[in-house]
Amino acid sequence: MIPALSENNRLSLFSGSANIPLAKEVARYLGMDIGPMVRKQFADGELYIQIQESIRGCDVYLIQPCCHPVNDHLMELLIMIDACRRASARQITAVVPYYGYARADRKTAGRESITAKLVANLITEAGAQRVLAMDLHSAQIQGYFDIPFDHVYGSPVLQDYLASKNLSDLVVVSPDVGGVARARSFAKKLNEAPLAIIDKRRQSHNVAQVLNLIGDVKGKTAVLVDDMIDTAGTITEGARLLREEGARQVYACATHAVFSEPAISRLSSGMFEEVIVTNTIPVSEKHHFKQLKVLSVANLIGEAIWRIHEDTSVSSMFR
Amino acid sequence: MIPALSENNRLSLFSGSANIPLAKEVARYLGMDIGPMVRKQFADGELYIQIQESIRGCDVYLIQPCCHPVNDHLMELLIMIDACRRASARQITAVVPYYGYARADRKTAGRESITAKLVANLITEAGAQRVLAMDLHSAQIQGYFDIPFDHVYGSPVLQDYLASKNLSDLVVVSPDVGGVARARSFAKKLNEAPLAIIDKRRQSHNVAQVLNLIGDVKGKTAVLVDDMIDTAGTITEGARLLREEGARQVYACATHAVFSEPAISRLSSGMFEEVIVTNTIPVSEKHHFKQLKVLSVANLIGEAIWRIHEDTSVSSMFR
Amino acid sequence: MIPALSENNRLSLFSGSANIPLAKEVARYLGMDIGPMVRKQFADGELYIQIQESIRGCDVYLIQPCCHPVNDHLMELLIMIDACRRASARQITAVVPYYGYARADRKTAGRESITAKLVANLITEAGAQRVLAMDLHSAQIQGYFDIPFDHVYGSPVLQDYLASKNLSDLVVVSPDVGGVARARSFAKKLNEAPLAIIDKRRQSHNVAQVLNLIGDVKGKTAVLVDDMIDTAGTITEGARLLREEGARQVYACATHAVFSEPAISRLSSGMFEEVIVTNTIPVSEKHHFKQLKVLSVANLIGEAIWRIHEDTSVSSMFR
Amino acid sequence: MIPALSENNRLSLFSGSANIPLAKEVARYLGMDIGPMVRKQFADGELYIQIQESIRGCDVYLIQPCCHPVNDHLMELLIMIDACRRASARQITAVVPYYGYARADRKTAGRESITAKLVANLITEAGAQRVLAMDLHSAQIQGYFDIPFDHVYGSPVLQDYLASKNLSDLVVVSPDVGGVARARSFAKKLNEAPLAIIDKRRQSHNVAQVLNLIGDVKGKTAVLVDDMIDTAGTITEGARLLREEGARQVYACATHAVFSEPAISRLSSGMFEEVIVTNTIPVSEKHHFKQLKVLSVANLIGEAIWRIHEDTSVSSMFR
Amino acid sequence: MIPALSENNRLSLFSGSANIPLAKEVARYLGMDIGPMVRKQFADGELYIQIQESIRGCDVYLIQPCCHPVNDHLMELLIMIDACRRASARQITAVVPYYGYARADRKTAGRESITAKLVANLITEAGAQRVLAMDLHSAQIQGYFDIPFDHVYGSPVLQDYLASKNLSDLVVVSPDVGGVARARSFAKKLNEAPLAIIDKRRQSHNVAQVLNLIGDVKGKTAVLVDDMIDTAGTITEGARLLREEGARQVYACATHAVFSEPAISRLSSGMFEEVIVTNTIPVSEKHHFKQLKVLSVANLIGEAIWRIHEDTSVSSMFR
Amino acid sequence: MIPALSENNRLSLFSGSANIPLAKEVARYLGMDIGPMVRKQFADGELYIQIQESIRGCDVYLIQPCCHPVNDHLMELLIMIDACRRASARQITAVVPYYGYARADRKTAGRESITAKLVANLITEAGAQRVLAMDLHSAQIQGYFDIPFDHVYGSPVLQDYLASKNLSDLVVVSPDVGGVARARSFAKKLNEAPLAIIDKRRQSHNVAQVLNLIGDVKGKTAVLVDDMIDTAGTITEGARLLREEGARQVYACATHAVFSEPAISRLSSGMFEEVIVTNTIPVSEKHHFKQLKVLSVANLIGEAIWRIHEDTSVSSMFR
Repeated sequence: MIPALSENNRLSLFSGSANIPLAKEVARYLGMDIGPMVRKQFADGELYIQIQESIRGCDVYLIQPCCHPVNDHLMELLIMIDACRRASARQITAVVPYYGYARADRKTAGRESITAKLVANLITEAGAQRVLAMDLHSAQIQGYFDIPFDHVYGSPVLQDYLASKNLSDLVVVSPDVGGVARARSFAKKLNEAPLAIIDKRRQSHNVAQVLNLIGDVKGKTAVLVDDMIDTAGTITEGARLLREEGARQVYACATHAVFSEPAISRLSSGMFEEVIVTNTIPVSEKHHFKQLKVLSVANLIGEAIWRIHEDTSVSSMFR
Repeated sequence: MIPALSENNRLSLFSGSANIPLAKEVARYLGMDIGPMVRKQFADGELYIQIQESIRGCDVYLIQPCCHPVNDHLMELLIMIDACRRASARQITAVVPYYGYARADRKTAGRESITAKLVANLITEAGAQRVLAMDLHSAQIQGYFDIPFDHVYGSPVLQDYLASKNLSDLVVVSPDVGGVARARSFAKKLNEAPLAIIDKRRQSHNVAQVLNLIGDVKGKTAVLVDDMIDTAGTITEGARLLREEGARQVYACATHAVFSEPAISRLSSGMFEEVIVTNTIPVSEKHHFKQLKVLSVANLIGEAIWRIHEDTSVSSMFR
Repeated sequence: MIPALSENNRLSLFSGSANIPLAKEVARYLGMDIGPMVRKQFADGELYIQIQESIRGCDVYLIQPCCHPVNDHLMELLIMIDACRRASARQITAVVPYYGYARADRKTAGRESITAKLVANLITEAGAQRVLAMDLHSAQIQGYFDIPFDHVYGSPVLQDYLASKNLSDLVVVSPDVGGVARARSFAKKLNEAPLAIIDKRRQSHNVAQVLNLIGDVKGKTAVLVDDMIDTAGTITEGARLLREEGARQVYACATHAVFSEPAISRLSSGMFEEVIVTNTIPVSEKHHFKQLKVLSVANLIGEAIWRIHEDTSVSSMFR
Repeated sequence: MIPALSENNRLSLFSGSANIPLAKEVARYLGMDIGPMVRKQFADGELYIQIQESIRGCDVYLIQPCCHPVNDHLMELLIMIDACRRASARQITAVVPYYGYARADRKTAGRESITAKLVANLITEAGAQRVLAMDLHSAQIQGYFDIPFDHVYGSPVLQDYLASKNLSDLVVVSPDVGGVARARSFAKKLNEAPLAIIDKRRQSHNVAQVLNLIGDVKGKTAVLVDDMIDTAGTITEGARLLREEGARQVYACATHAVFSEPAISRLSSGMFEEVIVTNTIPVSEKHHFKQLKVLSVANLIGEAIWRIHEDTSVSSMFR
Repeated sequence: MIPALSENNRLSLFSGSANIPLAKEVARYLGMDIGPMVRKQFADGELYIQIQESIRGCDVYLIQPCCHPVNDHLMELLIMIDACRRASARQITAVVPYYGYARADRKTAGRESITAKLVANLITEAGAQRVLAMDLHSAQIQGYFDIPFDHVYGSPVLQDYLASKNLSDLVVVSPDVGGVARARSFAKKLNEAPLAIIDKRRQSHNVAQVLNLIGDVKGKTAVLVDDMIDTAGTITEGARLLREEGARQVYACATHAVFSEPAISRLSSGMFEEVIVTNTIPVSEKHHFKQLKVLSVANLIGEAIWRIHEDTSVSSMFR
Repeated sequence: MIPALSENNRLSLFSGSANIPLAKEVARYLGMDIGPMVRKQFADGELYIQIQESIRGCDVYLIQPCCHPVNDHLMELLIMIDACRRASARQITAVVPYYGYARADRKTAGRESITAKLVANLITEAGAQRVLAMDLHSAQIQGYFDIPFDHVYGSPVLQDYLASKNLSDLVVVSPDVGGVARARSFAKKLNEAPLAIIDKRRQSHNVAQVLNLIGDVKGKTAVLVDDMIDTAGTITEGARLLREEGARQVYACATHAVFSEPAISRLSSGMFEEVIVTNTIPVSEKHHFKQLKVLSVANLIGEAIWRIHEDTSVSSMFR
């Protein structure tokens, strides 16, 4: 019998095209480079991926938030996973800082897809053996997977930043009833700040929806908290209500800067003291505006990857 | 070639031991009997199931809420499914009016099980081809299944009953931040009643938790809404706060009457005008008390089974 | 026991957004309408699908060629399948007139994906129970599925059209060595026409690739045959060589009009007498040019769907 | 919507090459013909199967005992299943009157295969949706499958024949300790005949094995019962011992006539009054001998197929 | 590339609540502690498990015999497995010294479950990658799993103990026809002791069952051998018959002390010289009686775990 | 916690009975022995395998070309895989130098099996975790597997040998249209030799097939290239045509020497200067003839195994 000579459990990091700057920051934290990979998109839209170095027996991490254009980025991730599986990687971890389709996590009417589960099935079927994701829209999405799933939280980065501003008389506001638990958990970390909720309701048939504030914000610094800002409609309407109800200042906080049209014009319209997000999704130069603050989660993701690779606890990062 | 003579797509209904009265009511609605089945529990605790009539090619419905003792009832359901699969049933639907372990639907700390997903996997693995469940703790649990899943709502039964009482000046109250979306949806059906939320919080270290009321209940009829009442601790504390805050009357509403010790003594202590539940879980005679109202969901479940069997829309029951 | 009243094995047809005109033609052949379906693409690129009528127990056909933009169209198909599965369709057939990523059907270098297999796995995992596809790039792709797969041929439509032109002295030409078997099968149907092959080769290092013609085309009407025309580079170069080698006329024939840039300018440059394709992929108005002939495969697909629904032989359509 | 016109749930019967006479008898019982099928074995040993008529939507039964040469017959069965699956059969039942490799149903030493389970996995993986088998070596093999499995018993045919002979003073003998439960069950049907057991044991090291008789056979008609007769070594040795111990007559009974060399010479050597088997495995003309009686199980298998097709009880055949 | 720093293939041992004393003995053999784990049972019967230390990359062994209450213990095991899988254990071995539902290993009538297979499927589905079990009711249960399965034997512990007593003139008795192979294998280890069998039979209709002894026990020391003692009915009736037939002494031997009511009163009634069992199932203090001898299999299980962890042969423990 | 003591990732090599000489050569290259294994074929044709040494945690390679008798050799491979899986091998690689049934890789008519895919499914289902194969009939077969698949090429061995002969004026000829891509790839390695193709065609109905040569061979040394030589009919007819068309010399080259009757008489009839094959399939002594040259691929396979075991690139062997 010949004993194995090599001890080849190397960590390899590859990046899809969705957020290369984040992947580079993560690599820097880990003291390594992103692995070489050819990515082509043919004229007919088909993607081609080739990993450019042997990854046999490697512990491979594929960084790809499923942000806009979500179908291309998801398919690119699946093709990368398939390529790595066929290339005999020892373990493939899909690192998905922003989980696309997360809001499609239940049926709200008959004959809909639960696309968040479909995405989970596709990632698993393609051959991923583990997922690392951040600030899921609903925590139940973890249960959509039977492979190990590490859920890391970007919110501490937001909270630390807010704490560093020494704002007084804070009230944390959930922009809708679906986000109350998230807002309350955020509030607890901000020195047990009080909570308010915005409830959008149609008073009667044929009457436009109106916003009600549940709770008190008068004279306070209101922090609207959500997991993502997409078109910024809800959060901007909410900010207007908060100001009407006497809030002294209004901040918006969210991990994922989806920023679909017309988010930028709404957010930069002066309704917010500051809009604080992270770089799970890249914010292009042209989308920057005066009140925007983008914080980096690269070290956090890098540390999580390192701990997964080293088989040490990830949950202890968040105690 | 011999054409098939029989047209044998019969509907068959069997009941586990968890809630035979409900199953009988369902059967009555469908104008049929519960199918004959031997169920034995041996001295060592092992269960034995034998279906007593041929179910080849049948469309079989197995009614079994996974209530206390949950592990026995779940295992009984799995064994019934396995027996039906091996007996060549054409389609097996697990009818689970109360989905046990539904609160274990996400990881709240490291190294926990997501048991609600595990249960979904076990039901699927045993051979069920469809699930019919009622008022899930979180709607995302539907996504735990890839087999068709019909989610029916018992809350209209509760709302109709409340509406029939012509209570004025209602406010719907969520007993905790996790149930706000459910309470708000309930409020919309009660003539767009306003919403209040109870937020349990620890003001600082070494201080007991205190309840805060977000929203206004003074002089109003408060309806505490939850999906289930287990030990009734949260809801009873909430009722006390509502009374302190000036609520005129306090009702409690929940689909699932889990009623673990000491629920009955808490609920019957005079804090509630009425405690309104359904019979998804059987409430034993000795657990009845003056303020308790148990409504039946049998017709609703029977109608859903009929529609599934007949291939007509279930979602249209709830428009 | 209650016998089933309904006999609900209805045929339902839905169309994704990739080729609605084709789907409408297919529906017309079947004497029915395309089923109602909401399809939205949110500002962030996520797709939303809702089937607008009950499809419980139906035999559902989802028409969606995976053409440009391939990832969006594929994902739309998967979401449609997932919605149908969760809506209790009895059987879901993915009708994929053009199978995207079909050229990625093998590894040509290390660490590539076999994306054609990945696509097969994704379609199966989403819940399709059968696939109907046309003129696959390689017949082996059928084996990528373990669910029933009906492979129909659009080439008879092309051959009939060519035959109707009464061209004399035909030679069928494969534009590369990979398509020889296809070209030869085509030639057999054109009255056992002779065959020629274009072999692109690098004569030595540092020398550009040159085209060699194997076989004889002098004075003949050459018909270049391929399964698809993408950027039209190979086929246009081939046509030039054929003219140099003395071909009297040059026709191009292909089932799938992928037509990526700069296909139109190449194809319309006068090198071809006629370019004959089918409507598996929609050819937009602005891509039409004088020599282009688009034939319809709608009746063929409609007939195949009918036979699948009726459980009669599909293969006998092509004897 | 177009309702389905055809009612195409036809029963189709095909036979592998292992036991065509049995399949023909079964077909005759069902009043139909064996379906047309091409079966070729190429010079290099590869098998080729083509079903010669459309079986879309059919309820297909494939008759193939996995007898000698077992690997060819098993592979033929798997290829038939695969062809039927790809040809869109509605339901595929593998009818395996003799289940090959059934004795390899557990590990008796380290690093063995449990080939009986492997065979179950292969049949399921190939696409069978149901199995019909007869007189399994161990009843636990049913549990190797998760698809419906109908286990029918050929032993009543043997018992009826024995009963018709009006033999007096019977004792049923198990030729080894592994078959005692089978022998005892056989004895119960023969008017509660008494039981004896042959125990082969090595008295001490370096001593040949000797047979011990447990129970009493003196002056009796001994019936040796087993599920199969392979080389007939054990059963012939057993017969010799029974005669030594004073048995008046010795009969051998077994469902499966494996009859490997040198079974025929042993069985025809005069040790047995009669050797009674069934035709689950074909007994070639040249293997017939004076004391051999072959009973047919065709009607029994035909009836079971009919009941499966008609969705009526199979187990009630054996009450 | 960063090489992996840690060499983290640690062995971890956790115990469910079924037999903590055994787990502690096993841990002692291995020179380690049982890992910290929170186990709660809520008032409504739901179980909660949290592993209290990181097990990423660990080789985890979960000790849990599925004894009374079997459904709770099985479900606890499944939840532990699920928690470990989600916590990224490298390998999860279910150590099941007593395999519950093992007697439900085949269908004895129509429409039964093969619950032993169901249990195998559930354990696999929950995420176990290997099973270690002891003295299975039937060896075929190994084949119910496709994951590696180590079957260890507790019987040598019983045999060594019996041998140490220097009993003369032994006869090993199987209490029923189903256990003859086990009894005979036991007899071979006891110096090739002779074998007798008890056959329970109904002589004719309307007559109570009677026990027949096959073989001879007169003047001998009879050892009744079974895999488990449940209610002790069969074995006690057997002992009575043996004494009637002249046995000098009667011992009972079994690995698994299920001991359901009224086992203790039957076993302690003076019919047995000694009742010898092992501690695969805990025997509570109040169940101890004078003639009971409980032997420990902890070292055996500990050694098997060690060998599995070290990748050395387990089967060689039993040569 | 106890750290793992052993570092037991040993490489183990076992050989089925199909090509022991090749396996021995491979072992020699690796400087090791073939592992001890019992292989028996019982009188009834059933195979029995026992691995004779512990392979727990080992990296196991099972060498077995699926050549004649293909069903026996395939089944032997599956049983070996099953035995290794149950014996806790860490990784099982099926080394299949000749992939049987590879020509059945697509449906050419209705109701056929795609047996090449069935074989892939069987190998995966049995428990192989990786496949190493050589010169597949079609490269798409790689996609039939989702487990890692290393495809190695034996053709360089053939090309090197041809190159060493310094033949001038070469033309590479494909014996049919299906092999053109293979022939052309072969030609490129032979100094960009030109290509010719033989096209077998029926000129009209009721007329025998005739061979047409496409391309020019006059005065040249023609090398007929195929992946395998089975009955040698096509290649011998081709050789005759080449000689008629003026080829000076004719060589035949193929990796797999299937050599079914009457291959030997055809190949040795003087039509070929030399017939060059490899030893993926053993060529028995009695099949050797004067013009036959058998080259060894053992070192190539040995090197691939070594690289897989060492986690270094296999694809770089073929650059």
